[in-house]
Amino acid sequence: MRKIEHIGIAVKNMDEANEIYRAMLNTEPYKSEAVESEGVITSFFQMGESKIELLAATNENSPIAKFIEKRGEGIHHIAFDVEDIDAEIARLERRGFILINHKAKPGADNKIVAFLHPKSSNGVLVELCQDTGPTRKELFEEGLR
Amino acid sequence: MRKIEHIGIAVKNMDEANEIYRAMLNTEPYKSEAVESEGVITSFFQMGESKIELLAATNENSPIAKFIEKRGEGIHHIAFDVEDIDAEIARLERRGFILINHKAKPGADNKIVAFLHPKSSNGVLVELCQDTGPTRKELFEEGLR
Repeated sequence: MRKIEHIGIAVKNMDEANEIYRAMLNTEPYKSEAVESEGVITSFFQMGESKIELLAATNENSPIAKFIEKRGEGIHHIAFDVEDIDAEIARLERRGFILINHKAKPGADNKIVAFLHPKSSNGVLVELCQDTGPTRKELFEEGLR
Repeated sequence: MRKIEHIGIAVKNMDEANEIYRAMLNTEPYKSEAVESEGVITSFFQMGESKIELLAATNENSPIAKFIEKRGEGIHHIAFDVEDIDAEIARLERRGFILINHKAKPGADNKIVAFLHPKSSNGVLVELCQDTGPTRKELFEEGLR
């Protein structure tokens, strides 16, 4: 774990939330991206070395729709930047953490990701993120969808 | 807003949570501190330019005890580092945000802080933090308690 890569915030209405966070953070969102496999759209704001990621559901089966139904809008997860996600998954499993994803999968913002279950981390949904760079991203887009 | 200063995580048992986050983050907590006015003890882990702050209640009237009773353990707030907290409070109030603290108050880790109400920020409790440096801290300890 090297730094907080981003904080994910579940919101109902992306347009309204974008206006609120633009005003609060006093900066413009630099990217919006859909992750179809998760049923979400995202909007990213840079804050120092980390990002704020707004997440809105695009269908009612999205994990974000379910989260909001159960808990309301709010902080959804913390993502940590890791250098070698496979090694980090193995290290955490050895230490007894419960991984939702035993293998990294493609995520938003040019990353491969894996989630830890909140029940082994005091109710916190933790995401591991490894930056894959544009070449790997192109491979995902061309080969893995 | 310059960076994520820290993420606050509400936990029931500080000793257990310290062990879990030490294992997860693969680093040692660098500081533990009580904030008597809030009824909390804290433990800090450095992650890049930001920190993970574990928060446990020291009495049942603590905001952390009430948070856990209502929502369970989990992420409690995001804190952003600001250069001039008075100016930032004034800017956010002009933009329509609801401030819990209209004036900065002493917080943990050598900071003055103010909170935004979650209802004007999509369910997210936001803390503004201004670093006061050791001299200002000494003033607080000697004069403001």
